[in-house]
Amino acid sequence: MEILRTIEEVRKLAARWRQAGERIALVPTMGYLHAGHLSLVKEAKQRAERTVVSIYVNPTQFGPNEDLDKYPRDFARDEASCREHGVDAVFYPDNAVMYAPDHSTWVVEESLSQTMCGLSRPTHFRGVTTVVLKLFNIVGCDVAVFGRKDAQQALIIQRMVRDLNIPVEIVVAPLIREEDGLALSSRNKYLNADERQRALSISAGLRSAASQFDAGERSAEALAATVRTAIEAAGGRVDYVVVMARTTLRPLPLVNAPAVLAAAAFFGKTRLIDNIFLDP
Amino acid sequence: MEILRTIEEVRKLAARWRQAGERIALVPTMGYLHAGHLSLVKEAKQRAERTVVSIYVNPTQFGPNEDLDKYPRDFARDEASCREHGVDAVFYPDNAVMYAPDHSTWVVEESLSQTMCGLSRPTHFRGVTTVVLKLFNIVGCDVAVFGRKDAQQALIIQRMVRDLNIPVEIVVAPLIREEDGLALSSRNKYLNADERQRALSISAGLRSAASQFDAGERSAEALAATVRTAIEAAGGRVDYVVVMARTTLRPLPLVNAPAVLAAAAFFGKTRLIDNIFLDP
Repeated sequence: MEILRTIEEVRKLAARWRQAGERIALVPTMGYLHAGHLSLVKEAKQRAERTVVSIYVNPTQFGPNEDLDKYPRDFARDEASCREHGVDAVFYPDNAVMYAPDHSTWVVEESLSQTMCGLSRPTHFRGVTTVVLKLFNIVGCDVAVFGRKDAQQALIIQRMVRDLNIPVEIVVAPLIREEDGLALSSRNKYLNADERQRALSISAGLRSAASQFDAGERSAEALAATVRTAIEAAGGRVDYVVVMARTTLRPLPLVNAPAVLAAAAFFGKTRLIDNIFLDP
Repeated sequence: MEILRTIEEVRKLAARWRQAGERIALVPTMGYLHAGHLSLVKEAKQRAERTVVSIYVNPTQFGPNEDLDKYPRDFARDEASCREHGVDAVFYPDNAVMYAPDHSTWVVEESLSQTMCGLSRPTHFRGVTTVVLKLFNIVGCDVAVFGRKDAQQALIIQRMVRDLNIPVEIVVAPLIREEDGLALSSRNKYLNADERQRALSISAGLRSAASQFDAGERSAEALAATVRTAIEAAGGRVDYVVVMARTTLRPLPLVNAPAVLAAAAFFGKTRLIDNIFLDP
């Protein structure tokens, strides 16, 4: 497995693969890899002859008061995980490689990113779309795999790819949970034992709402209230609980079309997100 | 020569060329081709085995009160010009091919586009960068050729390519003038005989300033005043006359580094731009 620190190294290796007629899959990550990321790697390996994992804590997708500095990092462990899972190359750039001091070009998605996480993190998605397009262009990948835990992010990236005619196939792989229901996230590391226990209220609330939905409940307000109540009863601070149309992320007061029920909440200082799909 | 109306047709042809090991050059235009455009085609043909000219009057780079509807169009003549100049394929899409009704992703350059034409045309460059990136992604070109008449545009595109790691080489070809000095532009067609005569004051003013510069004048204010006075004496309405550092487009009060002296002015309803480089 190759560890690549510069754009030139990546381009050289990717060109060699392409010349050999090999397809390239990219799994963009911020590192601190967990089973969710590794499920993306497995998916990637089924889609292409070569798999690249990028590990880069992208500063431009963090707000000024967010957790950029304390975001968990463990490159040695990530490297071992990638090696073990048959990754061909890890792209591990530093900030000077990724952003010129006078960087001034951004990719902005102006519709899907105006809601949900976009409200409390107004520059987050612009950082995501910009760095993802950069990674696509650096690697020249044929396919890229993202996780459905970040449902809004995946949708925004699919929109970007469509709108800018980016020749990359986007695969969105299932959300992976701990056995007790907690959605896997690198940020789970921030939780102490008590917070972690209380954070289970998010997935438990979503599961309750799904049961209600299966029993015939179609009111977005009622479904969201179930989740909100569960989180607040566990002492969480809700950022949002919403029911949105699956492709437009517009509010869907009555769930009569494919929808996503999504939640974001703080436990202690840690902000967690989770979601389920509702299919009437 | 192929006339391609859809993205699928372009991708198919370009893939065939790439498989044959041929490099592809793109000349993005809004059509109504003149000798300036054709000089770009000649440049393109020297840089790659295959040359594609795109002809698309991109609505997103026009402001609400600009000349989108009356922008000159003559596809039959453009097609003949391209054929005559050995173009391999013309990409001639309509709006439905280029923009989904719910298009929501934009490429925005936030530094170089804040001055000069960006002040009077606030959404212009966002339309340019977005459509240019789309064209790059559709054609999958190795190189793209732009004209130096649009000096700010060329600089912004070079910045976009750097910032987003776009694997396309950008070539900026010289500005082409009529024998009497008028910079070639499709918009010259709007000028009546009197306006056209008076519009020569732009290039004449720039030439006078260049002479002053050659004689030792280094004050941006003095050089700009020469151009401004020439235009206003001919009854033109100045939008801007500025002296900017060549790569940052920051004002350069004293021309002690590579600079661009650029002017935009209205004659009648027609807005024209022109520029010269100053090298101390």
